[in-house]
Amino acid sequence: MSWVDVPEGSDFPIENLPFGIFRPRDEEPRVGVRIGDHVVDVAAAGIEPDLAARPSLNALMASGHGGAVRERVAELLTGPERPDVVHPIADVQVLMPIDVVDYIDFYSSIHHATNLGRILRPDSEPLLPNWRQLPVAYHGRARTVVVSGTPVERPAGLVADASGTGRLTPTRALDIELEVGFLVGGQPAARIEPDHADRHVFGVVLLNDWSARDIQGFEYQPLGPHLAKSFATTISPWVVTLEALRPYLVEPPAQEPPPDPYLRAALPWAVDLELRVELNGTPITATNFSHMYWTFAQQLAHLTVNGAPAGSGDLFGSGTVSGPTKGERGSLIELTWRGAEPLTLDDGSTRTFLEDGDTVTVRGWCGGGDRPRIGFGEATGTIVPTPEAP
Amino acid sequence: MSWVDVPEGSDFPIENLPFGIFRPRDEEPRVGVRIGDHVVDVAAAGIEPDLAARPSLNALMASGHGGAVRERVAELLTGPERPDVVHPIADVQVLMPIDVVDYIDFYSSIHHATNLGRILRPDSEPLLPNWRQLPVAYHGRARTVVVSGTPVERPAGLVADASGTGRLTPTRALDIELEVGFLVGGQPAARIEPDHADRHVFGVVLLNDWSARDIQGFEYQPLGPHLAKSFATTISPWVVTLEALRPYLVEPPAQEPPPDPYLRAALPWAVDLELRVELNGTPITATNFSHMYWTFAQQLAHLTVNGAPAGSGDLFGSGTVSGPTKGERGSLIELTWRGAEPLTLDDGSTRTFLEDGDTVTVRGWCGGGDRPRIGFGEATGTIVPTPEAP
Repeated sequence: MSWVDVPEGSDFPIENLPFGIFRPRDEEPRVGVRIGDHVVDVAAAGIEPDLAARPSLNALMASGHGGAVRERVAELLTGPERPDVVHPIADVQVLMPIDVVDYIDFYSSIHHATNLGRILRPDSEPLLPNWRQLPVAYHGRARTVVVSGTPVERPAGLVADASGTGRLTPTRALDIELEVGFLVGGQPAARIEPDHADRHVFGVVLLNDWSARDIQGFEYQPLGPHLAKSFATTISPWVVTLEALRPYLVEPPAQEPPPDPYLRAALPWAVDLELRVELNGTPITATNFSHMYWTFAQQLAHLTVNGAPAGSGDLFGSGTVSGPTKGERGSLIELTWRGAEPLTLDDGSTRTFLEDGDTVTVRGWCGGGDRPRIGFGEATGTIVPTPEAP
Repeated sequence: MSWVDVPEGSDFPIENLPFGIFRPRDEEPRVGVRIGDHVVDVAAAGIEPDLAARPSLNALMASGHGGAVRERVAELLTGPERPDVVHPIADVQVLMPIDVVDYIDFYSSIHHATNLGRILRPDSEPLLPNWRQLPVAYHGRARTVVVSGTPVERPAGLVADASGTGRLTPTRALDIELEVGFLVGGQPAARIEPDHADRHVFGVVLLNDWSARDIQGFEYQPLGPHLAKSFATTISPWVVTLEALRPYLVEPPAQEPPPDPYLRAALPWAVDLELRVELNGTPITATNFSHMYWTFAQQLAHLTVNGAPAGSGDLFGSGTVSGPTKGERGSLIELTWRGAEPLTLDDGSTRTFLEDGDTVTVRGWCGGGDRPRIGFGEATGTIVPTPEAP
């Protein structure tokens, strides 16, 4: 056991030890490891200070030394007490953990893609012919990936009026997308095999891909979403290592038809990860990440199969996680069936899409009960109004 | 006149002075300014060494001091001789000039978009309803933007067979896209007005957005191109400043219908920039950038109107530049009308799409004749085969 006291039910027991970036009072940002309600200052502990006395995890992720650093932190926490290298979480600022090099977002929940197909193209097959053959994805804006707690400004963009003319307006259809994000580590590598995913994925975060459905509807043909999704993507600050998640890797759903050989894996790469979303404190979604049709291992194989390398600092999102039932839907457009079935919150108010002042919080964890709880903390954001024109 | 001799017809007279990154023999990469067939070592000349002794232009671009540095280099070149701070271009390595933060690619030539619409959707209106209302764009992969001269590996991806099943194959439809790239400088800023574009655009490069048309056809619905364009984007190494281009800014074509007010400019933001493409030395395209429907000023306004900031290190591409006539088309899919009209090269061989070993070179310049020639050098790349599976 650790000499740092870990509260009952904490997301961050000694089995977890996720990495993040924090700033102690009046000092420079640096690498920390979370334990219970405390943060270990890795550089101050003398563990790889060249990699740890930095304002992002990128160098540590690139080095391939993350596993060794985590083991040394575990030894530190179970050896002689070193209160001088540990800070209460309340005394530090928790910051954006990485410099995102590229942000790629997938679309890999069959339940989400089917729901969207039914809502947007009610007269066609909900899944397009390519959907079961490759994990569909697009690139997002790396610069606007922000850490949990950052306010999210309501975006403006062109939305069609009754005549089909686009008018600049703050979005009236601001939505969430419940996702899981994967951070790539190591040197850039191409043509990664799915069963080598654990050599290249450094860690995992919760992700909310905020989306403006009305802006998206007007702009997205023929090259995909742009302004509808480029304004903000929120991630949780503590990067849970794949090593910590290994006991919770499970078999994914069967794929029919079987995918092309470059997408086939022998090992189980689904993650038994419980996910929850609250809107102003009211639970609105409870699902599990293991429902995903395409695994993160297949996604990584896909995004590098053309020869484009992935390496330290790349972030890819799973795509919206929706499960098979109504209460497991990961976006408001699905939960309210594009506004036809508003949600009622605990305070009696109703929502179709988000209002200014609304707070959305994503939480997630593996295990619990008899097994160690490997938690992710939270990814939260509050909507602030579009600024007035100057 | 400069004490560095500038050859007749050079792209780089004293009126140009573009920025780049170079490595003198056995030394670290640093900022250079090109003049004729020489490079000025800015840090060695004592000009803002904190910004110039760096391996990318990002810090200089962020600082807002680019204009002042360029003026001091011009003074240096017209003052007492300082051969100690100038290298012949043949003695140095010219490197990738920037760390790309985000790469956004537009689709703003009406001739290109109309050609593509006719080729891909022959039974519909060639332009989609949103095309004249906003500059359509998508995000590309920042990590794979490479400098001129970098070999381009033929990408592989799923391509539909006769039954519609995707099969992994090296692309058989490797294409070019003749574009102009814009580098953003300064601190991150949102909601940029088109007429303030010159406060935010640091400089301009040539850009070739290599594309795999068959992979694109299979993957792009509904979220846009991904692997078809993520493998490589080539830029020219010398960043021509907007200051140098100012005499060549001209009125863009009239826009009908007039765009939303956030996209309206009073100043002329088209660029009278001649563009050429050669394939294995055979000229295949000659056009001018002033044909573009949407200007770079409108593109910058668009990509920030939702509140997403743009700042130092962001790169946006104009979209394929095609002019109104057949010889002005900026991609092979247009030049060969999707393979129906192969090109004949000077060696008698024919091409629909690119073969392994082919070299594509993009060149561009403003002025010439009676006016100073503000040239861009070249953006070139040679196709190498897809690696064999291990």
